[in-house]
Amino acid sequence: MTNLSPTLKLAIDLISRPSVTPEDAGCQEVMIQRLERLGFHVESMPFGEVKNFYAKRGSSGPNLCFAGHTDVVPTGPEEEWKVPPFAPEIVDGMLYGRGAADMKGSLAAMVTAVENFVTEHPDHKGQISFLITSDEEGPFVDGTTRVVDALMARNETVDWCIVGEPSSTNTLGDIIKNGRRGSFSGNLTIHGKQGHVAYPHLAENPIHLAAPALAELSNTHWDDGNEFFPPTSFQVSNIQAGTGATNVVPGKLNTQFNFRFSSELDFDTLKERVIEILDKHQLRYDVEWTYNGLPFLTRPGELVDAITTAVQDTVGITPELSTSGGTSDGRFIAKMGTQVVELGPINATIHQLNECVDAQSLNQLSDIYQGILTNLFANTSQA
Amino acid sequence: MTNLSPTLKLAIDLISRPSVTPEDAGCQEVMIQRLERLGFHVESMPFGEVKNFYAKRGSSGPNLCFAGHTDVVPTGPEEEWKVPPFAPEIVDGMLYGRGAADMKGSLAAMVTAVENFVTEHPDHKGQISFLITSDEEGPFVDGTTRVVDALMARNETVDWCIVGEPSSTNTLGDIIKNGRRGSFSGNLTIHGKQGHVAYPHLAENPIHLAAPALAELSNTHWDDGNEFFPPTSFQVSNIQAGTGATNVVPGKLNTQFNFRFSSELDFDTLKERVIEILDKHQLRYDVEWTYNGLPFLTRPGELVDAITTAVQDTVGITPELSTSGGTSDGRFIAKMGTQVVELGPINATIHQLNECVDAQSLNQLSDIYQGILTNLFANTSQA
Repeated sequence: MTNLSPTLKLAIDLISRPSVTPEDAGCQEVMIQRLERLGFHVESMPFGEVKNFYAKRGSSGPNLCFAGHTDVVPTGPEEEWKVPPFAPEIVDGMLYGRGAADMKGSLAAMVTAVENFVTEHPDHKGQISFLITSDEEGPFVDGTTRVVDALMARNETVDWCIVGEPSSTNTLGDIIKNGRRGSFSGNLTIHGKQGHVAYPHLAENPIHLAAPALAELSNTHWDDGNEFFPPTSFQVSNIQAGTGATNVVPGKLNTQFNFRFSSELDFDTLKERVIEILDKHQLRYDVEWTYNGLPFLTRPGELVDAITTAVQDTVGITPELSTSGGTSDGRFIAKMGTQVVELGPINATIHQLNECVDAQSLNQLSDIYQGILTNLFANTSQA
Repeated sequence: MTNLSPTLKLAIDLISRPSVTPEDAGCQEVMIQRLERLGFHVESMPFGEVKNFYAKRGSSGPNLCFAGHTDVVPTGPEEEWKVPPFAPEIVDGMLYGRGAADMKGSLAAMVTAVENFVTEHPDHKGQISFLITSDEEGPFVDGTTRVVDALMARNETVDWCIVGEPSSTNTLGDIIKNGRRGSFSGNLTIHGKQGHVAYPHLAENPIHLAAPALAELSNTHWDDGNEFFPPTSFQVSNIQAGTGATNVVPGKLNTQFNFRFSSELDFDTLKERVIEILDKHQLRYDVEWTYNGLPFLTRPGELVDAITTAVQDTVGITPELSTSGGTSDGRFIAKMGTQVVELGPINATIHQLNECVDAQSLNQLSDIYQGILTNLFANTSQA
């Protein structure tokens, strides 16, 4: 290991710890020791079984937060891995191990970036913080969202946030995520009256009752999206009715649907519009809502500029802004009014067997993170 | 048993034979012996494992056929029966046993009616026949339909048919069935393209594609029915799509539907109209059709008049004509151009535990059947 960069050494140390969600397996303690050495004030903020910490250096000016998670998804069959998933190794320039890309490589790059930056700029402007959880891959109940609630309760502000999620697609820094769609789902039961197909006047067929309403929901134009978001999308994921017998009219129909919505709309408005359609079709129904998260959007500005410049300076490309894909913990942090951007390594192998990341790209990622700090917080009077 | 009428003695003999479909358990042999004694020409017409026979007395003039089945549905838990289901007993005037109402009581009444009629009118007009199967409660493949095919192949004609199905609802003879709706079902698969709900542009949701077509099929007015049939009815009995996961757009949707159709329409016309609607909605689909039977209708005329008068003379009520309810073997016989009417005891307990029939009503049913024979075939020059 003596030839390895501090970023790769730290990444390997973190990956070696089998922190399958919601376990942290000592990762946060490693990060905390490094940050305390740099003068960070560290608070452990466990909730339930989940370990979280918030650490900050500096006491005034804008707060730039590095956010991430130490937990990883399960490995799948270990014998199918090229290297044991918790015994990371660099093979042909690629660092293999569970969490290499999602997202222990990013955590290591954040820590070494801050170490280098603070060494160069011990009296930097602004405040640098870390918000780290071990519950991003799990139910995300006792992780970032609880820490954010606690920070908001004491009026802590976070102006800018970089989430280390693996945003890159083909080459490091080609894509940064400046927002995510909102998401919620509904579990809808439509009631009819069971009967025999030979006596339809004695039955009420819930499939017949549901079909026009589902047709209308499927064809509704919810919004146009905006320059950053595609139009809001409604998708039915499951539908089931019937006993299996072909001569029985079923008593009820069950269906699940999901919304991915743009920043033009919100949960309550969409819920009302769904209910309006169901009521218009005079259905008897029950619906349970599961709310997964607000959309968030970080418009081009100081943070996006600082990131774009750092990527250009380090790897010579201009990142593309994107809001596509699933949800991340960014949605919880955005509640604070924070500008949130996700930037991390290539995501091609995440959640798969033989998860890996180009070793050299982690060193570059550390340089990019350091460049962002320099662009935003360098104390030019010191330089 | 010495006090019992010949009809009840024969009914008890038949019910004692455990002829769970497709077994006959010797029932047909009992009937055949009685009919041969009367001068019937009897043909055994077994197909596969199914016993059937066709018997006829007389060689010219209209052919009146008594049709029925010796098989019965399974008993369910025998220990829950008041009397053992194959050890029939009369309790408080009710004859209990599997098949008492559906339809060994009717078979006994038919045989004794013919015995009494032939004794009074040995040189009766017309032809009297029996078409008896042991596969009405089963798959109805090797039963009546095969016998009918054989009879049609040799140009046998059957002008009138009385099926002994239990048609009565509240009191013997209150309802006779002068037709039944046609029936067929479809198994429809609508193809889409599986994907993730977060990337709807890469998926094609078969639930969304199906909903407007199902709405149109459910709302289509197929016909007005006619004076004997309610309007044709379309019912979806089952629908299923989805993996269970709420974030996956399913790849296909499967649904089953069923038509009960009036004598105004036929299978091919309805099939074409369904396909037209599916095609109009530009669906990619497969559909398998299962054809259960043509509708049949016997309009008021000589047969209905003979039955109505016999019911009035025996029990003092005027039967109501009805085409409601499920299918019966009448649909196969009607193919011969035969006027078919179903007339039998009260159907309240059929296919249930403790199946039973009013003992006295079987004697009356025999009188009704004999009255029909008298009305149609009595040789008045002899009387």
